[in-house]
This record gives sequence, C-alpha cells and structure tokens, in this order.
Amino acid sequence: MDEFGLIDHIARRARLRADVVLGIGDDAALLQPPPGRQLAVTADTLNAGVHFPAETLPADIGWKALAVNLSDLAAMGAAPLWCTLSLSLPQADAGWLEGFVDGFFALADASGIALVGGDTTRGPLSLSITAMGAVPAGQALRRDGARVGDDIWISGMPGEAAGALRLWQRGALAVRAPAADSGHEILRQRLQRPTPRLQLGQTLHGVASAAADVSDGLLADLGHIATRSGVGAVVQAGRVPLSSALRDALGADAARDCALRGGDDYELCFTAAPERRDALQALSSRLALPLTRIGHVVEGRGVSCEGGADTGHAAGYRHFAAQ
Amino acid sequence: MDEFGLIDHIARRARLRADVVLGIGDDAALLQPPPGRQLAVTADTLNAGVHFPAETLPADIGWKALAVNLSDLAAMGAAPLWCTLSLSLPQADAGWLEGFVDGFFALADASGIALVGGDTTRGPLSLSITAMGAVPAGQALRRDGARVGDDIWISGMPGEAAGALRLWQRGALAVRAPAADSGHEILRQRLQRPTPRLQLGQTLHGVASAAADVSDGLLADLGHIATRSGVGAVVQAGRVPLSSALRDALGADAARDCALRGGDDYELCFTAAPERRDALQALSSRLALPLTRIGHVVEGRGVSCEGGADTGHAAGYRHFAAQ
Repeated sequence: MDEFGLIDHIARRARLRADVVLGIGDDAALLQPPPGRQLAVTADTLNAGVHFPAETLPADIGWKALAVNLSDLAAMGAAPLWCTLSLSLPQADAGWLEGFVDGFFALADASGIALVGGDTTRGPLSLSITAMGAVPAGQALRRDGARVGDDIWISGMPGEAAGALRLWQRGALAVRAPAADSGHEILRQRLQRPTPRLQLGQTLHGVASAAADVSDGLLADLGHIATRSGVGAVVQAGRVPLSSALRDALGADAARDCALRGGDDYELCFTAAPERRDALQALSSRLALPLTRIGHVVEGRGVSCEGGADTGHAAGYRHFAAQ
Repeated sequence: MDEFGLIDHIARRARLRADVVLGIGDDAALLQPPPGRQLAVTADTLNAGVHFPAETLPADIGWKALAVNLSDLAAMGAAPLWCTLSLSLPQADAGWLEGFVDGFFALADASGIALVGGDTTRGPLSLSITAMGAVPAGQALRRDGARVGDDIWISGMPGEAAGALRLWQRGALAVRAPAADSGHEILRQRLQRPTPRLQLGQTLHGVASAAADVSDGLLADLGHIATRSGVGAVVQAGRVPLSSALRDALGADAARDCALRGGDDYELCFTAAPERRDALQALSSRLALPLTRIGHVVEGRGVSCEGGADTGHAAGYRHFAAQ
C-alpha cells in the first residue's frame, strides 16, 4: 500500500455532507460555507510519545486526534463542518491504518464532521488535523468576554484523564487494554476517548460570557480566559467536582491536583453572569452533564485558588517548558 | 522560549485580513467567508529528510511549506484567504524560528494569505499546513473536466527543481548557499523557493477545462487529470520546454527526464479547448510566464509520451512506493 493507496483507503470511509461540493481526490476540496455563519478554524497536532504513549491503540489515536480538535470547536460554540488530516507514518501498515480509521470515523460520523482532505507522508507517527465549524455571526464563545462578577463553571468531572496518566506512569494501568478495576477503566476511557462537549458549546450562545476547553489544565486554561479578558479569577478548590473513580484511584489530594492542574480533559470551562445559574442548572439536567460553579471573576489579574493546597498563578503542561 | 512563546512569536508576525474576525489566541480563529464563493481547502505536510534535505535553511523551509499549499489553491483557481500551521520542532530554537518565520511570511504577505491558527509541538521537524482559498461558485479548476480533443498545456519551465535535486544528490550543489554557477543557482532557487502560480490559476476560470499542479511530476500529475476525467493523454516530449539552465547543467536527455518525471515544480498543467490557443498566448504575454502546448487529450486511458525515450504509464514520486 503506497501513499495513494493510503489516501484512497481513508477517503473511502469519508462520509460526505451536502456542503462538500468536491471531496478528497483533487488538488483541494471545494466546500460551500453555510450562509449567515462565521467559520471557526482550529489546528492541533498529536505526536507519538509526546501527546500520547507510543503503545496507544491506533483506534484510540484516531479518536483522540479528532477529539482534541472538535473540543476547540466546542469551546467556540461551533457546529462541526469539515476537517483535514495530515498523517505521518513510519511505514505503510494496513492493520494500523484499519484501526486508526475505525476510531477516527467513529467520532467523525458521530459529530457530523466530514474529512475533506489531507495527506499521508513517511515519518515519525504524527497527526495534524485542522477542523472547521460554523457559528452564528457574532455569537462565538470567545476567551475575552469574562466580566467581573461572573461565575466560573466547569463541565463534567475534570482530572480523570490526568488520573489515568498518573496510573499509567506508575505502571498501574495499561493504555491498550481494558482495566480490571472498573474505576480505573473509567479513567482510562477518559484519557483515550475524550468526549468533546459539542452540544454544550452550541447551547452556551448568549449564556456564557467566555469559554475555553480544558486541554492544558483547569487553572491554566482559566488563566487564558482571565488574561484575554483582563480580569482575575478565584477558584474555590473545594467546589471542583471529583469523581469517585478518581478519588478511589488516587486519594482526595492527588485527585484534586489532577482536577486543577491535569490536562487532556476536554471539558469546557466557562464564565456566565450570576443570573444564568438557573438556566445552567436546567441545561445540566437536559444534557445529563454535570455543570458545576467553582468560582468567580474578580478585578485584577491571574488565577488564585482558595481552600486548596495550591495558590498563585497556575501553570499547565508546556511542551517546551524549561527543565 | 516555550510553546506559548513560540506561538506568540509567530502570531506577532501574522498580518490580518479584514475577514479575520478573531486570529491566533483563542480556541479557534473566527473567519468571515466571502459571499458567493466556495472554499477550496488543501493540506500538505513536509517532513525533514523526506520532503526536503535536513540541512535546508529555515527560511527556505518556511517558504516552501506554504508554497506547496498555495500551489494547490492555484491549481483550483482559488484566491488565498487563510491558513493554519502545525510546526513540530526537536527543540525550541529562536534562531531557527526567526529564519523560518521570515521565509513563511515573505510568501504569506506576497500572496495575501493570513495565518490564523496552528500549534507548535516537540517532535521531529515537520510542518503541516492547511490552506483555504475562495473560488467563484461553480468555477473551480477541477481535475475531472478534460475532454477529448483538448490541448494540454504546461506553465513555466518544468524540471528545474528536479534538476537541482539531482545536482545536490551528486554533491554538485549545496542547498544552503547560493551556487557560484548562475545556472545552478536558478535551479537551486526553483527547488528552494518555488513560485505558486496563483495569478495564472485565477485567470484560467472559463479557459481551462481541467488543471493540476505539478508536484509528483508532469506525467504523473497529468495522469491524475486523465484518470479523473476518464480520458487519455498524449504528450509530445519534444514540445516540453527545457530551460537552458537545466540543459546546461544536466544535458538534454536528463533535462527532459527531469521535466517529464521530476516533482516539486509547482507549475500548472492544464487542458483547454483548441479555440483557447490565442487567448492563452495572450495570457502568457500578459503574465510574462511561458505557457506551452505539449500534447492533447485522446480517448482511452493513461498517459503516453511521443518522441521521447519514455512511453507508457507514468509514475511520479511515491513516498510509500514499494522498494
């Protein structure tokens, strides 16, 4: 199977949308943008050994590479439209590709995004995806809209992905196989198959004042909102929800640290005026997704954390951080 | 300089367009698509040691990574709008990045494309770009429109990039420094700083019946047009233009082989009805760009080459080709 064979193999699985005038196979795809919408465009790369353990199953790699990009669309409140995939592989491997394609299209089909282009090259395993989505003009969830007095909210149960990574790092969890411990398996699924909060993001138009997805860690990503909005943020550590799976696996202190600082969660952190509390509780019920108020926006700068061991400015994971 | 510093450094150089509602710095960029247009979207990756010699200057890498994507837009007849860049680097290196950014933005600014997103990750040197452009609805230059009786045309002087690569492979050319021989330097520039034929592409609406850019080699890319159009193609080898720089460097036979089979040229190969000949000659004068009629479209399948040493179906460079 050569380069063209790989592309064909992937292209055959691509489900088209009515707005895809011309898909994979020409110099470029031709797409019809939806009228009255703006495009949200994001690009994220995953490299083996940096962003996921090298032994990760190809299906999980396919799912996650798309999930991290869909999560960025979710954080803007955008509906998925199209994506491109650049896949570098050490060698053409039909079995690996079969698994990868299964995981990638399981999420692509569920989210409605169409793969419209890309390429395959020989090189160390790496996946670059650019995802495009549609938002009603002027209604995107940006990072720069937080106002003093807003509440700070988090979706779901943060820290579970980081918890799984800690278990894996200490040899207590295999990423390739289901864990015998059901709690460990919950954490493993959250690391390997994160759920981008697309429905939530598209429901937050006019409700949230600012939003970001939690990829670098809750405090770090909240810091991005605070910086862009020119405000400070106070998080009450005791309010941050901790799943029993995470607490049971790591104990309360480490669980809280994962929830505050762990990356790879892909939950949404957002701000909203206090008068939105009832609406957000109702939304939480409707989506069957926990939405938890964990702090508030203040004058000033940076993120402070009350009631936990951690205070001061938060730092997330940085690929090029000084040693 | 960490990951965020790298992104900031690149983002500071990004010139914005009026249709960029929100650029780098949020979860995604927000873009306003031009009304009445379709989007052309393409993605191409360059890996060090596979797509360019590892010792290539960072400024040339930046230029070329963007050029190969702009060339795909040119081949669709699209006007450049926006792009994303995923950059994997072995380590954060301010000097390398400075050079890269210089080359990248030299071409970005000249072509009018805006960098709107992307990421930097740690990994083997690799660049993935997704480029978006605009085409008048229904007027894109596709590969599937060639008709029996059409002429086959090539822009510019094909083979020069492949000629430079041959010189480099035999140790007769350094890719990092200007060549003492002025002819060699012409070839080196064509390999390192290819010119995407954007103006030509946007002028071929309603004139060309099909088009592709020459990245895999003239015969191979013409083969893609023939396959997608369900026709055959006959190339008269003696008509393919050979620059004196290429002939002087390699001799006539090797020069012709480079022109027919060499990749990395980024000229446009296109088909047009015979009644377009006068218009195309006038266009050639206006753009100061050679446009040469090199063959014609026939019934059947595949590409045949008359009057050269080569006949039969053409194969270009394939990254995953069997050894």
